[in-house]
Amino acid sequence: MEEPSYAGYKNSMQQVADFRYSAAVLQWDQETYMPVKGEEARARQIATLSEVAHERFTDPALGTLLKALSGNTGLTAGERRNVLLSQEDYERERKLSPDFVRRLSETVSKAYQCWISARKANDFQVLAPVLEQLIQLKREEADLKGYSQHPYDALLNDYEKGATVKWMDGLFDRFVPSLKKLLDQIATAPQVDSTFLQGEFPKQDQWNWGMAVLGKMGLDFEGARQDLSEHPFTTNFSAGDVRITTRISESDFGYMTWSCIHEGGHALYEQGLPAAEYGLPLGEACSLSIHESQSRLWENNVGRSLPFWEGQWPLLLQYFPEQFKGISPRDFYKGINKVTPSLIRTEADELTYHFHIIIRYELEKSLLDKTLFAKDIPAYWNEAYKKYLNVTVPDDRHGCLQDVHWSHGSFGYFPTYTLGSLYAAQLFKACSRDIPGLENRIIQGDSTSLLTWLREKIHRHGRFYTSEELCRQASGSPLDPELFLDYARVKYGHIYGLSL
Amino acid sequence: MEEPSYAGYKNSMQQVADFRYSAAVLQWDQETYMPVKGEEARARQIATLSEVAHERFTDPALGTLLKALSGNTGLTAGERRNVLLSQEDYERERKLSPDFVRRLSETVSKAYQCWISARKANDFQVLAPVLEQLIQLKREEADLKGYSQHPYDALLNDYEKGATVKWMDGLFDRFVPSLKKLLDQIATAPQVDSTFLQGEFPKQDQWNWGMAVLGKMGLDFEGARQDLSEHPFTTNFSAGDVRITTRISESDFGYMTWSCIHEGGHALYEQGLPAAEYGLPLGEACSLSIHESQSRLWENNVGRSLPFWEGQWPLLLQYFPEQFKGISPRDFYKGINKVTPSLIRTEADELTYHFHIIIRYELEKSLLDKTLFAKDIPAYWNEAYKKYLNVTVPDDRHGCLQDVHWSHGSFGYFPTYTLGSLYAAQLFKACSRDIPGLENRIIQGDSTSLLTWLREKIHRHGRFYTSEELCRQASGSPLDPELFLDYARVKYGHIYGLSL
Repeated sequence: MEEPSYAGYKNSMQQVADFRYSAAVLQWDQETYMPVKGEEARARQIATLSEVAHERFTDPALGTLLKALSGNTGLTAGERRNVLLSQEDYERERKLSPDFVRRLSETVSKAYQCWISARKANDFQVLAPVLEQLIQLKREEADLKGYSQHPYDALLNDYEKGATVKWMDGLFDRFVPSLKKLLDQIATAPQVDSTFLQGEFPKQDQWNWGMAVLGKMGLDFEGARQDLSEHPFTTNFSAGDVRITTRISESDFGYMTWSCIHEGGHALYEQGLPAAEYGLPLGEACSLSIHESQSRLWENNVGRSLPFWEGQWPLLLQYFPEQFKGISPRDFYKGINKVTPSLIRTEADELTYHFHIIIRYELEKSLLDKTLFAKDIPAYWNEAYKKYLNVTVPDDRHGCLQDVHWSHGSFGYFPTYTLGSLYAAQLFKACSRDIPGLENRIIQGDSTSLLTWLREKIHRHGRFYTSEELCRQASGSPLDPELFLDYARVKYGHIYGLSL
Repeated sequence: MEEPSYAGYKNSMQQVADFRYSAAVLQWDQETYMPVKGEEARARQIATLSEVAHERFTDPALGTLLKALSGNTGLTAGERRNVLLSQEDYERERKLSPDFVRRLSETVSKAYQCWISARKANDFQVLAPVLEQLIQLKREEADLKGYSQHPYDALLNDYEKGATVKWMDGLFDRFVPSLKKLLDQIATAPQVDSTFLQGEFPKQDQWNWGMAVLGKMGLDFEGARQDLSEHPFTTNFSAGDVRITTRISESDFGYMTWSCIHEGGHALYEQGLPAAEYGLPLGEACSLSIHESQSRLWENNVGRSLPFWEGQWPLLLQYFPEQFKGISPRDFYKGINKVTPSLIRTEADELTYHFHIIIRYELEKSLLDKTLFAKDIPAYWNEAYKKYLNVTVPDDRHGCLQDVHWSHGSFGYFPTYTLGSLYAAQLFKACSRDIPGLENRIIQGDSTSLLTWLREKIHRHGRFYTSEELCRQASGSPLDPELFLDYARVKYGHIYGLSL
């Protein structure tokens, strides 16, 4: 009998990655450039690729090889970790049949196209029937994967290992009331001016500005590109080929800018993953919440900070000299951090943002345990926005049709956004502690030391550590929502002239 | 035992198509948008997709199914034809091992990247070592596929069923001396003016103009798109998703325009293939030469005709009012058909063009029978251009580095360009006979009747008929180089004021 070979394992994994990344190329193309009549064939092409990736990854021969390798004491620590993580992934994926994976992939492709149509028609019910099919498949997936308390646990666990409804409920319970209190205090203060963010910002100027900012952040364009799409996203086809997308509103400076910085943060993480581990767990991001911590850290902790805008002010005026004439970096900083309950998650300020998440979290929980169905989403949504944010949703496009996630089959994903913000606050604090004068460096327009720290502490490890292990190693303590709240109190106290 | 099922055959074929079309998406991306550091992973991703497509298509179970189905008398004529053609394809592809297919695909990806680098360096020797590996693989492929007389026969046959060195030599013998005579006569006449084609043609204006022309040709942009690439090409991922690419020179009006029309002709063919036959032979183009007949017909027989430019004159002046001020459609027509021996195939006039082809044909023949090797190509090339066209090649970029084909692994492809021109002349003559007043319609800017004729006579049949059968059905006679020569004598006699 042949010796169980790490090279054989690596080869199998890399072939699976070839199929997965190929599917990602097809998806990227679908959302950026594909002509509309390509839909039907594209759906089946992606489904076939997903199916073969699943088929290869769940091949019992790989299972046998993994089992044999797990006892191999000649492996390095990295190799052992790859094998262990692949075994866990294998066990989880074995629970889904090839037929199930194909049905899921085909339904996702249809749902995405319906989402586009529904947005055009501004009518959620265009999406509802296929979304209901998709939710039914996700319930089936939860059953196949198994859970001890709530079906949603099985899906949460896909995006954040070990996350459960119980754990998330506990976390939101510790976080949301304090956040609410903070918001109530801000509401009593005089409002800041942000009107200068609305105006005329020509498309091409914004594009060039966005590309310049991405360059300043340290994005390597020899291994990345940016394109336009309906909904911004980051994807990658190897550590050497990372794609981000954005969208532009000519009347709104913020619509593109912080989305660009956000996706740029994701892209920097992908570029920092170890290229030699292509297709292996150590070549992948630690978790979605850590991924999101990277985008949030750049978007909020850096990209909505005063030092950053002091540093980038000359660059900003180079692109928009007229639009920001007479505005100081400090006015700008205050305006871009204006706290206002609003309708659209991706445009929300960094405090009210988390109410958008809890609404989606509660909603997904109800969809999974069948206390809610797709057709009922608009009514539920509109009521929840009234309750949590006291805003009235005028139509579906400004309500439950705003996010692409469900039509991508992503249920359990939204909570990682809040986790990401919490991790970001904690990591940025640790980085500020580790790098003397970080703020001054950022004022001087230098983000290299920050990126180097992130590469060292987060990026290069891939999936070697869990989110919590990484957080503990980098910051010295486990995830603590209080650190986000501290950060928020200092920042918004300063902006709104309050002692919080 | 289960009844051999046409549905089962169709399903298998469509899955193979999913992999092939997915690889085509990855290739398209590689040549349009991929950042340079994506190269390495992309090469292996395409190789993996090619390998699995090959593996699935050469699965003996499919062979057994095809054999069983071939005796099924309950099939329609179309179904029988699909099965028969698939059987032929199966037998041919069975001759290549999965390992061979992977090596070929990986080498092609490397060769393409080397071609890009070699062009940048303007040095063919940058490409030569990997090209030599590729040629060695093509020789191996010829041996695996088998041939009775010349190894090149095996490759020619891939692009044009039944084509052999003997047949091609015979065809060139009948065609080239008459063409040479025609050129010699033109050389004695006063030259026409084409200086107005050089000037300042802003990139965006050219792009918009090209898109407008494609629209006038009848290209459906809901199922197609155009992008920029190093070397123009057409590809498709289904009948509903056709991609063409072009390139622009701001100083040369012709560099983009006729390439755009050419690829547009290819794209119209792909859009006219029966969508319901996705993945089956009847959903594919008849042959490369018929494909090329469609691009050539639009590029030359239409796009370099006087009626077309009379029809499109107002549109042209809309985009380039200054550049063509004082030029008449007739002057324009003469200028764009100026016959001049030159260095670059894709910019050659439609007569000297064929000398570019015979040079490549002779060269490939020698590479295949090992009387020539990759490193010797520049010397051979430069000598041949001197001999056939009496031009001096200044450097590799204007010489043997100009075409992407070899770095794509396409040997035996070039002759189909000449075949395409010959078919185009014959088909356009037949169409003019069938549609009363075709010329007047084109003058009125209407190309619908022409497109309808092509859809009916050529496009909708897919691979049901061979090139020769299609030609005979559409025109009433087999391929006859004399018809191209007749067309050329009339057209160029008129332009150069000669009786030919």
